[in-house]
Amino acid sequence: MIKLTDVAKRAHCSPTTVSRVINNYGYISEKTRNKVYQAMRELNYQPNTAARSLQGKKTKLIGVIFPDVAHPFFGELVSKIEDSLFQAGYKMILCNAGKNKEKEKMYLQMLMANKVDGIIAGAHNLGIEEYKKTGLPIVSFDRKLSPNIPIVTSDNFHGGELATKDLFQNGASKIYFVGNPISDGHPTDRRLKGYQKAMADLQLNQHIYPVIFGDTPALKEMAIEKLLKNHQVDGIVAADDLTALLIIKIAKRLKISIPQELKVVGFDGTNFIQTYYPTLSTIVQPISDIAQILVKLLEERIKNPDLTLCNSPYILPVKLLKSTSSTAL
Amino acid sequence: MIKLTDVAKRAHCSPTTVSRVINNYGYISEKTRNKVYQAMRELNYQPNTAARSLQGKKTKLIGVIFPDVAHPFFGELVSKIEDSLFQAGYKMILCNAGKNKEKEKMYLQMLMANKVDGIIAGAHNLGIEEYKKTGLPIVSFDRKLSPNIPIVTSDNFHGGELATKDLFQNGASKIYFVGNPISDGHPTDRRLKGYQKAMADLQLNQHIYPVIFGDTPALKEMAIEKLLKNHQVDGIVAADDLTALLIIKIAKRLKISIPQELKVVGFDGTNFIQTYYPTLSTIVQPISDIAQILVKLLEERIKNPDLTLCNSPYILPVKLLKSTSSTAL
Repeated sequence: MIKLTDVAKRAHCSPTTVSRVINNYGYISEKTRNKVYQAMRELNYQPNTAARSLQGKKTKLIGVIFPDVAHPFFGELVSKIEDSLFQAGYKMILCNAGKNKEKEKMYLQMLMANKVDGIIAGAHNLGIEEYKKTGLPIVSFDRKLSPNIPIVTSDNFHGGELATKDLFQNGASKIYFVGNPISDGHPTDRRLKGYQKAMADLQLNQHIYPVIFGDTPALKEMAIEKLLKNHQVDGIVAADDLTALLIIKIAKRLKISIPQELKVVGFDGTNFIQTYYPTLSTIVQPISDIAQILVKLLEERIKNPDLTLCNSPYILPVKLLKSTSSTAL
Repeated sequence: MIKLTDVAKRAHCSPTTVSRVINNYGYISEKTRNKVYQAMRELNYQPNTAARSLQGKKTKLIGVIFPDVAHPFFGELVSKIEDSLFQAGYKMILCNAGKNKEKEKMYLQMLMANKVDGIIAGAHNLGIEEYKKTGLPIVSFDRKLSPNIPIVTSDNFHGGELATKDLFQNGASKIYFVGNPISDGHPTDRRLKGYQKAMADLQLNQHIYPVIFGDTPALKEMAIEKLLKNHQVDGIVAADDLTALLIIKIAKRLKISIPQELKVVGFDGTNFIQTYYPTLSTIVQPISDIAQILVKLLEERIKNPDLTLCNSPYILPVKLLKSTSSTAL
């Protein structure tokens, strides 16, 4: 068991200084603070959460880390999470990590300095290891399985299957998956796996066309235009709704009629898309449920930091919202 | 000058208790905390910010209060604000106040308890008075002018004029404004005023059709359907892009062709709308500039809490993004 005095020794400072850094008390220079953090990381030192909570030092602050609230899916999810946290008496420190690994790292340090009570992590940059070193209760949305950190996710696999089968049932057979190719634990991996399973069941050829989630819309449009011009395709499972909207936009520009010549099913199904793009068929994730379960699990975690939790993810059901972008002729 | 002891007297508790509430230190019951807050509000007590900052008690936390990040405009604005705050070394506590006055009030209390260094306020529920009582540095987005609180806003008046004149120049004459009617300082007031000025200049009859910003999309759709069925209208200045999208959606359903029979110009012009609804003509607000100026002014305010600031708002230029929803026949 690593002790506070071990950290002090490694950081070449007094135990009082380490304690001040951990409890964010009194004046500490930026340099010293960083030295202490580094020592804590190197030793994987976890401040004694039980002792801290006995001191009544709860801040009622939760760090919430997602790619970007300007994205409609994350905007709605963060909005619901904030609602659930507020009802539970918490406030949210929001970090839009984007694709920026350094920003996410600095946020983790700042969240430790501000003594948040826990973290809800849904960005895609860092490994879970770096989160564990914060010594804070964490729940994860849509991230790779790791022991003892609860993961909440939608049934992405079934969603991929549902979308593929819907396209087939409505007459498509040259069906492409457009999104991230299989990577290292990106959430859309399971959507792709579901597509592959359905295509195998239907004895159809699989076509994976890479359009990267973090790329700019302009880059995505270029890739999509190439796809629609150079490939025989009559059905597309888009890895998310925004990619689906770009596909429909480019198809219109190329005078490819939807759904007559090309059928498209998206993924996410936010209230925003349902209201303002009602013609899009899409797989709907249960955003409110995801938010509530994330907050509930985090609360449990905060109350019992040492509780061993179930090792398998919490997988929530998705549904197909059927509309005109994938109807039969 | 109201002193801490006056607050203690009014709240029937000891000065130590008041100090603990203000500095969020030690155990205080919810009931006592609320009594102290109430006394602070009633006396308009402002904790001595200079003294607090001498104690080096900066938290580097900023409270950011907007209606809802699930709305594309606020999602993008909050995303940019978070970026600017991060670069300045601050973190953001995000509050989606929605239409909920009580929630906004409770957040203000929590932000005081968490000793944020300042507040960026852009929700529409409370008067500035209630913010002033926090005794914190505040900057406001799009809110009613109040002495000594800087206001950042887009040139909504000019935007209203631009949209109206664009519709007229492209052949519309029965031009409606669809949005909030003049209310008590709602940001879209100035858009409406700009519409009225342009219509007067053009010697056309003004038509204000109320569709309330905070209503659900379903309610808005009902109102818009009535408008399109029962009124002679060939041009619409929509108070925001989402209302414009609903108008276009209902028009399609009623087989009213756009732009042949009806021309529409929206307002906000987020990157999202520009990318995913490129057919919509809209007035573009400079979201990045707004975010940067809000953060810069707040930083100045935090450094010099007693500085008297310029009494007039910071008005940023807008531009017309011309597209097919308002082109001539």
